[in-house]
This record gives sequence, structure tokens and C-alpha cells, in this order.
Amino acid sequence: MSIAKVLDEILHPQSVAVVGASGNERSWGYSYTTHLLEYGFRGKVYPVNPRYDEILGLKAYPSLTDIPGNIDYVISCVPNTEVLSMLEECGDKRVKAVHLYTARFSETGRKDAADLEQEILKRARHHGIRLIGPNCMGVYHPGHGIAFAYNLPREPGPVGMLSQSGGGAAVFVRLAGRRGTRFSKVISYGNALDFSECDYLEYFMQDPETSVIAAYIEGVKDGRRFFNALRRAASVKPVIVIKGGRGNAGTRAVASHTASLAGSMDTWQALVTQAGAVTAANFEEMADLALSFCLLPPPQGPRVGVAGAGGGPSVLSADECEEAGLEVVDLPPEMRKDLKDRGVEIWDWVGNPVDVSIIGGFGISDLDILRLMGRSKDFDILVGLINELIMFTLSRGQGADLRLKAAVEGYRSLREESGKPVLAVLGDDGSGIDEYGSAAGNIISQARTDLIAAGIPFYPTMERAARAARKVLGYYARRAG
Amino acid sequence: MSIAKVLDEILHPQSVAVVGASGNERSWGYSYTTHLLEYGFRGKVYPVNPRYDEILGLKAYPSLTDIPGNIDYVISCVPNTEVLSMLEECGDKRVKAVHLYTARFSETGRKDAADLEQEILKRARHHGIRLIGPNCMGVYHPGHGIAFAYNLPREPGPVGMLSQSGGGAAVFVRLAGRRGTRFSKVISYGNALDFSECDYLEYFMQDPETSVIAAYIEGVKDGRRFFNALRRAASVKPVIVIKGGRGNAGTRAVASHTASLAGSMDTWQALVTQAGAVTAANFEEMADLALSFCLLPPPQGPRVGVAGAGGGPSVLSADECEEAGLEVVDLPPEMRKDLKDRGVEIWDWVGNPVDVSIIGGFGISDLDILRLMGRSKDFDILVGLINELIMFTLSRGQGADLRLKAAVEGYRSLREESGKPVLAVLGDDGSGIDEYGSAAGNIISQARTDLIAAGIPFYPTMERAARAARKVLGYYARRAG
Repeated sequence: MSIAKVLDEILHPQSVAVVGASGNERSWGYSYTTHLLEYGFRGKVYPVNPRYDEILGLKAYPSLTDIPGNIDYVISCVPNTEVLSMLEECGDKRVKAVHLYTARFSETGRKDAADLEQEILKRARHHGIRLIGPNCMGVYHPGHGIAFAYNLPREPGPVGMLSQSGGGAAVFVRLAGRRGTRFSKVISYGNALDFSECDYLEYFMQDPETSVIAAYIEGVKDGRRFFNALRRAASVKPVIVIKGGRGNAGTRAVASHTASLAGSMDTWQALVTQAGAVTAANFEEMADLALSFCLLPPPQGPRVGVAGAGGGPSVLSADECEEAGLEVVDLPPEMRKDLKDRGVEIWDWVGNPVDVSIIGGFGISDLDILRLMGRSKDFDILVGLINELIMFTLSRGQGADLRLKAAVEGYRSLREESGKPVLAVLGDDGSGIDEYGSAAGNIISQARTDLIAAGIPFYPTMERAARAARKVLGYYARRAG
Repeated sequence: MSIAKVLDEILHPQSVAVVGASGNERSWGYSYTTHLLEYGFRGKVYPVNPRYDEILGLKAYPSLTDIPGNIDYVISCVPNTEVLSMLEECGDKRVKAVHLYTARFSETGRKDAADLEQEILKRARHHGIRLIGPNCMGVYHPGHGIAFAYNLPREPGPVGMLSQSGGGAAVFVRLAGRRGTRFSKVISYGNALDFSECDYLEYFMQDPETSVIAAYIEGVKDGRRFFNALRRAASVKPVIVIKGGRGNAGTRAVASHTASLAGSMDTWQALVTQAGAVTAANFEEMADLALSFCLLPPPQGPRVGVAGAGGGPSVLSADECEEAGLEVVDLPPEMRKDLKDRGVEIWDWVGNPVDVSIIGGFGISDLDILRLMGRSKDFDILVGLINELIMFTLSRGQGADLRLKAAVEGYRSLREESGKPVLAVLGDDGSGIDEYGSAAGNIISQARTDLIAAGIPFYPTMERAARAARKVLGYYARRAG
């Protein structure tokens, strides 16, 4: 059976036991159990803990071998010293896979802990049990009702993630989720004792539910194999890679985090780029890129049209686009002629970016000009700057919600009519100092929700939108060429 | 009289006339009048418009010459064609200064408009009237009750700003204001027909109410004079400069925005850096820097201690600090000995950044380790990562407000005890998609308010905190050396 099939079976268990389950709300054994109930896992759930008769309304079992039915998948929340004996029980019950949330192994830098880790691998292999982890958060698979944290999106989506860091995976699902990104499966794999990053990459490449792959990686065991897996995956789906541990301190931190050999950064960057994948510096940029790949059609070139801001911010938006590697082309002669023919007095003055502070009163809006850009063969990418400052300033903020709604509706029709990538920039007004009780946050939240419903990705700053657009363009250009 | 004294007098008028005042809430003549009332201007306010008897409860005058008393300062909202005749009336009334919100002059690229601008300067000089603008938002001087937009902070503060862009000035005051920065005076000066950027810089350098200077500049008239003014100013106060119009498109946009010659970027960067000022790429970075300079004591070196995040985000925080030019030093032997002596079992495993996912249950918190770093001579800068994801995840978010409060209180005492620069990273949870009605925004807003009250600047990402800290360090190092 191919590794992708093995993993797919593991990720779709019909029964899950949580060993070290607990009624203590602050324990991970409690959390993992409650997640199965709350995220709608439809198979059997067996809490295991000899000190409880019942946990969260479910019958608790003293040990795995006391469970009457089959167990496909075990989540281990017991201390590291108890893993070996638990594995023997797993062997008896013919468990297919164990997720070892359990930590304190090789990542501690201590020989006895590293030896224990190797012994665990040996016993698991002996019993034919596959391992996720140890030292990891495990699986978030919303379509199957498995999760590793509270408040993650319930509904599935197209992004698959493999992450050497559980905290990082949770941070990313949260960050990206707030932006409208949804996930097929997220696998936090920690010390990668059994399955490696290559196995997970292979899985996501073949998984029909995954169309964009995100990877947080601190170090790999076999560089050549990883490079090949990455190249294969990137040839069929966008792959976004964060390398954790790029400098001296980061490399040191990686050692104590997942005991990986971080390797030289130069080699890494070259490897990832050659493989046709896209690098991200941090989870914020990865969230920008994941959303962009999910929603944007492939840009046909680097020529960007920008509209929506006033003078200075318009000027800076041009700088930021060019610094990101996009081309901020001037309006072509036929567009100027069109404007002149329509009687727009400032036909020779208005430019790209469209400065909204000069177009008022001339019978043309920034959206009108974006529409002309949408129809012109001279523009490949369109960016709308939603000036929330102006929205909340005009008429003292009254009607800001309606103005935002109109702006979003305009971008929605622009996207449909033009078929081009449309990006929106919308800041985060609403949680600054002394904004307790402000309605701005709610209004922004609504506008962001509407943008995503319209298939338009949003970014908190122009700089981030420009960089994301450039990387999306670069990915498709490399894949085509 | 020195230019600084001239400007100081102009910025403290006892009487203001708004020519082109209006009862139409959507007009700028209305806005400027209402701002004087709402921001608490204590002198006389005279709306001027022949079509009104009364505007906003104030007697309206048909013309400036109909006003019985003295007029120190005029805000011109009339069309460009009416400015010359208005200036004659200003001459009759011995007006000291006119802010020309009026635009459509040289920035249109049209000769007749540029000629009109020059004629305006000639007539103003003839009458001894000084001009701010044209094509600008003018003055925001909260301590004197003058403003150019709604919803700006009422209370004054230490940041002075000169801006060639009015939209940029408003965006910046808003962005920085939400972060807790307050302003002495902000001057949007547009086409700089009379006073130049050098004059404003000179003013802010001498102004005792200003301790940090921010400048948005698209182009200067006299490079040598500007360089000298910048060097003088930066030798006494931090000066943060954004250059608008750095590339081809930006330069083109500058021409249609304020008709400045943007100049080559290489020359600019060299000039600003040689002068000892600090560059910012955009208003977001300028907001980071302004807040940092306002609140941080000068760092004594680049060695940073970081705590608060879990594994992967910890690793990336180290990368981001190093990439920004900070040094993420390991814990010194005496600190490890101290931890060992206290019986902290992971004394040899815990590092810098402090990974909170490994310290639970060992009787030591991330804040404890930051405190040790605060006392150690091996750390110059301390960064606390407030993990809002964890705050809102533990106990399903119940008590998130109390956990945040405790974190802020911890950083407050750390700052007081250590005397070192303490920076907090706190994301913007609360206005993502489908977060309509979420309490998170309010809780984050409260935490940010508390951080500022404690004198601790906050940043939305680690990357931005690290870059700001490095630039603050660089400024003081250059000034000292």
C-alpha cells in the first residue's frame, strides 16, 4: 500500500481512544476528548483512564485492552514513561496508528530520553503500529471531526498543512482561519519518529481534498528525498514552505524544540526555490499566501492596477508594488482616450495608482477606473485599497457599514467581469487602544466576511498584498516555464 | 524673527476664519469649522460664506472684511479661482497666515494652474501673509483645538509630523493614534509654496512640545539645505522619514500629487542615513517607530531576550530578531546556574527564546525568565510575545481578559524593575471573518490600552517589533558615536 493510502486510512479512523483522557478541563486528555465530541467525530470515542468511570458523558475504560470494540487510532496523553506499556496494549488491540502528544524525548537533548524514543519506534514497528509524533499536536481534520484545539473552523477547505510545530500549526490555522482560509487536514508531526515530512508531503500531493499545501519545517532527515518530494508536489499544487531555524539562535532553538538538524539556510532557500515551491518568512506571510492561492486565478503577468487611496498612500502603494516586483504601468493611451471621450476632465492627470483625492467631482470613481483596467489587456492584477479611515471619517462614521458594503460589492462585480486576480487591502480598525465597545471591529469583520464570500482575498497592508501577488505570479510562471 | 518663532505664532492663532465655510455636512468648509468647535479651540471662529447667516450656530460673514475683529489665521476652502481676491481681503485684515486647503494648482501639471500658484505666492508676499499649502490638509494641533479630520485623538503628545500628503498625515495620525501615539502638531503642507519642509523640520526641532519627529516627504526643493536641517534635527531628536515616490511609478504618482521632483532613491537613502535620521518604508512602519521612540528607553546594545510563544513561533521569533539585526544570545552560565540552584529541572534545556510549551510544570514561568534576563548584564532588550491564541483557547476563552491583564501587569513590573526596553507583541484578534459580535476585539483593545498606560509599546507581529527595536538602537548608536 502506498504511503499516501496508509496515511489516508489513518486519517479516517472509525474509532478513537484517548489514553490519558481526563475530566480536568485544563488537561490535554480532556481537550482531545472534548474536541472529538465538539467537532462532530461520528465514530466511537473511548476515553481511557483507570481513575474515571465516566468522562464527558462517555464510559471511561481502565486500559485499552478493556475496550470491547476495535480501535483504529489512539491519542496518547500519558507521560513518556508509560508509552512503552501502552504500545503493548495497542499491539494486543491491533491499533493502526498512535498519535503521541506525549513529549520529553529526543528534543530534551538527553540520551536516556532519546533512547526511549528509539525503543518506542522499535516496539511500534514490531506491532505494525504507525506513529504520528511524538511531541506534537497531531491531527486537525475538520471534515472527519478530529481537532487539536478549541475554536478552529468546523468546516473543511482546500489547504493541507504539515507542521513540525504544533503551536505553529495552531497559530497558523487560527491566523489563516480568521482570514477565511479553510483546511483539508493539518498534521503536526513533531519529532517525525515514524512518518517523515516527505510522507506527509506525498500524502497532501495525492489528496484530492487538498489543493494548496503549507509546510512548517525545521529540519529534514533526508535532503535529497525531501527535494524530490517537494518538486513533485509543487508541480501539481502550490506548496508554501516556512523554514524555522534560519539563523544561529533559531537553529539552537530548533535543537531544543524538535531535535532536528536545521542545515544551512543557503542550501535551503536554493532547494525550495529550485523545487518550484514558495517560501514564507513567517505564519503571517503564509496566511497571506494560502489565502491568495485559494482565491486568486493565476495572474497572467506582473502589471498591476491600484486604486482607492488618497495622495501619499497612493504614492507609497506604487513604491510597495514595485519593491515587491510588480509593474505599476501607466494608463495606456486608449484608456485615456476612453476617459476623454466620456468627458472626464482629468483624463490626462489621473494615473495608476488612481489617487481618489483628485477624482472627486469629475464623474468617475476609482471603481470605474478599476473596471476599465479590468477590460484592458495592459493590466494583469487589480488591487483595491479599501480606505477604512475614510469610511469611518465621512459623516463621522455614520453609514461606514453601507460604504464598506458598496465597496465590497464593487470589487465582487469587478472580479466577475474581469476574471483577473482582484486583491483587497483592508486594515484592522477596531481593536486599537481605547476602542473598547467600538463598532468598527464588527463592521470590518462583516466587510472581511463579505469579501471572502465574494472570493476576494484581503490583506492588512498594501505591502503584504503586493508581496503575495508577486509570489503567486512567480509560482505559476515557474510551473508553466 | 526665526522661522521657528514665525511658525509657532502661526500655529497658535487667537482667531480663525474659515473661508468657504458651509452648512453642508459633506463639505470641507463644514468639517474645518466643526473641528474648531469639537476639538476645543478657545479663540474666535468666523465662518465666511455670503450664502449663510449662520453656520453651526456661529454668525457667518459674507466676506473676511465684514468680520469686526482681528483674524490671525484663515483656512481657505474656496475654489482656486477665488484665492487671489481672498488674499486681497486677507491683506486688508492683516491676516498672518493662510492655510490653503484649496488645490488644483501646479500638481495638475497644467501651466495656467502653476502660473496661478506663483501669482498667489507673489500676492501673499506683497501683503506679508504666510502660506501653508496649497493642496493640503493643514494643521492638526490638538493642544490648541485645531484639526483636519474627525476622530483624531483630542489629547496632545510628543510626536510632531510634517507631511507632504494630507491623506498620509490623516492615515498616520489614525494608525499611530490607535497604537497609543499622541501628537504635538501635525502639518500637512502639500505643494510647499511658501514654507518648505526645512522650515517645518526646523520648527519641530526647536519645539519643546515635540520629542519625536515624523516626516512624509515626496521631494525637496533644496537637497543641501534639507540635508543640513535633517542632520541638525536628528542630532537632538529622533527623526523618522518616509520617502514617497521611490520607484518609477511612485515618482510618476508624486508628480501628479504634489508636483515635486522626487530625485534618485540612492541619493535619498544615503542622505537620510548620513544625517542620522531613521527611514520607514510606509506608515505602518512609521507608526511602529514613533511609538517605539516615544516609549522605549535607549537600548544599550543589540542583545535581545524573547519569551512567551510555543515551539515553532519561538523558533521563528529568533529568526526574525536575527534577520532584523538583533542578537539572540543564549542564556549565560550564571543564569543557568541560578535556574539549577532554584531546582528548575530544565535548567540546561530552556533557552532564549523561552519556549513556553516546554516550561509548564517546572515551577518557572516565561515572565520569571524575562525577569532574570532583566537583571542580567547579557540582555539589552526584552520582548514579550503575548500569545492571544492561547489566551482565547485555554478554558475555551473564559478568563482570557484576566489572563491578558495578568500578562500586561507582568510586563509592567518587568519594565519598571529592569529599566530596559520592553516590547510586547500582541495580534489583532477580533475583526476576522465571522467574528461579528466577538468579545475578542474588546479584550485585545483593553490589553493594548493597558500596555500603553504601562509605557510598553505593542506591535502586531514579532517581525515588526524586531525591526523597530533595531532601528531605535541604530538611531541612538549613531547619535552617540
